[in-house]
Amino acid sequence: MNKQLLFVKRPEGEADASTWSLETNSIPEITEGQILVKQHYVSLDPAMRGWMNEGKSYIEPMEIGSVMRAGSVGEVVVAKNHPEFKVGDFVAGYAGVQQYIASEGKGFYKVDPNLAPLPMYIGTLGMPGMTAYFGITEVGKVKEGDTVLVSGAAGAVGSIVGQVAKIKGCKVIGIAGGADKCKYVVEELGFDACIDYKNENVATRFKEECPKGIDIYFDNVGGDILDIALTRLRMNARVVICGAISQYNNKKNVKGPSNYLSLLVNRASMTGMVVFDYAERYAEGAKILGGWMAEGKMKSREDVYEGIENFPETYNRLFSGDKRGKLVLKIIEE
Amino acid sequence: MNKQLLFVKRPEGEADASTWSLETNSIPEITEGQILVKQHYVSLDPAMRGWMNEGKSYIEPMEIGSVMRAGSVGEVVVAKNHPEFKVGDFVAGYAGVQQYIASEGKGFYKVDPNLAPLPMYIGTLGMPGMTAYFGITEVGKVKEGDTVLVSGAAGAVGSIVGQVAKIKGCKVIGIAGGADKCKYVVEELGFDACIDYKNENVATRFKEECPKGIDIYFDNVGGDILDIALTRLRMNARVVICGAISQYNNKKNVKGPSNYLSLLVNRASMTGMVVFDYAERYAEGAKILGGWMAEGKMKSREDVYEGIENFPETYNRLFSGDKRGKLVLKIIEE
Repeated sequence: MNKQLLFVKRPEGEADASTWSLETNSIPEITEGQILVKQHYVSLDPAMRGWMNEGKSYIEPMEIGSVMRAGSVGEVVVAKNHPEFKVGDFVAGYAGVQQYIASEGKGFYKVDPNLAPLPMYIGTLGMPGMTAYFGITEVGKVKEGDTVLVSGAAGAVGSIVGQVAKIKGCKVIGIAGGADKCKYVVEELGFDACIDYKNENVATRFKEECPKGIDIYFDNVGGDILDIALTRLRMNARVVICGAISQYNNKKNVKGPSNYLSLLVNRASMTGMVVFDYAERYAEGAKILGGWMAEGKMKSREDVYEGIENFPETYNRLFSGDKRGKLVLKIIEE
Repeated sequence: MNKQLLFVKRPEGEADASTWSLETNSIPEITEGQILVKQHYVSLDPAMRGWMNEGKSYIEPMEIGSVMRAGSVGEVVVAKNHPEFKVGDFVAGYAGVQQYIASEGKGFYKVDPNLAPLPMYIGTLGMPGMTAYFGITEVGKVKEGDTVLVSGAAGAVGSIVGQVAKIKGCKVIGIAGGADKCKYVVEELGFDACIDYKNENVATRFKEECPKGIDIYFDNVGGDILDIALTRLRMNARVVICGAISQYNNKKNVKGPSNYLSLLVNRASMTGMVVFDYAERYAEGAKILGGWMAEGKMKSREDVYEGIENFPETYNRLFSGDKRGKLVLKIIEE
């Protein structure tokens, strides 16, 4: 049978169990030219909250009753004369929270489980990794000697952003929630420092760690931390707006950055990014990040939970911060 | 005698008459290598409010007791073997609200009263014009076919921004306060439309006038108008942060733009600018704008008041909007 998680109710504020419905359907039959993919893992990402909203965004909003959208990785188990994929191929794509999917193959690409564990293909070698790599290089225009501040530093994107910046010769300060995460960011990932926003005074610590200000702020969180970071900009600084997890569950208006006039004073810029714009360069990005992983210059950590029925509670870990590294759910049942 | 307006009290919120003190001193004696400039006009600019605040900004804050900082234009009336300037030269600079100044000449440059009236050298051919020109071309990266939205459209900067954009082949929508100003912006300056923010629903009118969104928003005002403009961005739009006149007199926090995540959705950027960064290119900018003025492709309007003692009430017109074009005060007494 094929367990599928359907998106059944647009949340106001936080999503909860009533947002989704787990259904069991028969495994789809495939027709000529199609493949059947048995999905092993799905990716859980803060961006999911935005996809649940109505209205124009960088991607179509999810329709009520559709399979919950998610990045995923799995294995081709049936193929009928498919020109590209054959049985036994491992493939990643955006196939949603369901155990099986019949497809013409559009949106899937092959991955090699011998080069990296499957969950990494929806993490460091997937969208979060690509977001980090193109965000810090193309939008942040990182260069040697920059001081780089990264929020969500222990997360899927932030952890890679900071490591790329270190490899590029920057001073890198992370921001994360809790002493454990901060310790991981400094000791395992090699950031120069990490500020614990849950237990430290962020404004004071920014001054201590970045006394001369910052050249790049890579923002995954928005809210107060963005506002404080704006007070620390150096001339011609770049603020990369990648996400705003602190604001995604707001029922009211998003908190706008009151200190945005620091952009004027410092001739700085604040630029939004969406990883899909770099789709044609994913292979390039994955090769570079994969190379650094292989050389031991970069680390990746996946926090893998299990059971498609545990999607809602796993999803909530994105916002509670109760996770260590890239959040992944194993949905295959052996 | 030399009337000088001193800055004597940092305002909280709006500046008022107690902010300044008019003093009468003797005309300074000049020494070898100096010039004495008799000042004809001073420029009144919204940026003045920022200069009155304490603390780090793009320029040193004014010191209590100093002559009120202002752009100015005047005439050399005495010179003692000055290498560059001689009696009879007209010069512009940042010599403040005072009738006479002794100077080594630093910061002054020659202007020609036969090519343009003197007040224009502190307006369209001075800082406001340079701000407009380099802001829309270098920061806004204006190109043919863009839809450009400009706030403060009847003002010293906005009026030039829109006219430059029209010359570059753009659709240009202005925002100004009151039917008179809007009429001037459309009928005299040639904008495609102008929205009267005092009497019209800005959000509705943006949709009507920019149904496909905007490529550039040139912001002189901040506040709600910036927030609404952010909802209309097209892909890769550029928001130029030139000023925020709606926020300068705030005693509390500046209103941050709640809709800043539109930058993410639309891969757009918001970039601050300070005209001083283009100082080495002022001659280039003035030549181009002066050329367009001479060809009749561009119009400039100066709203000239008279009397150094009327500085405070003239200054307040910046914020009440009770002015028509570039605000200038004639301080020479004939």
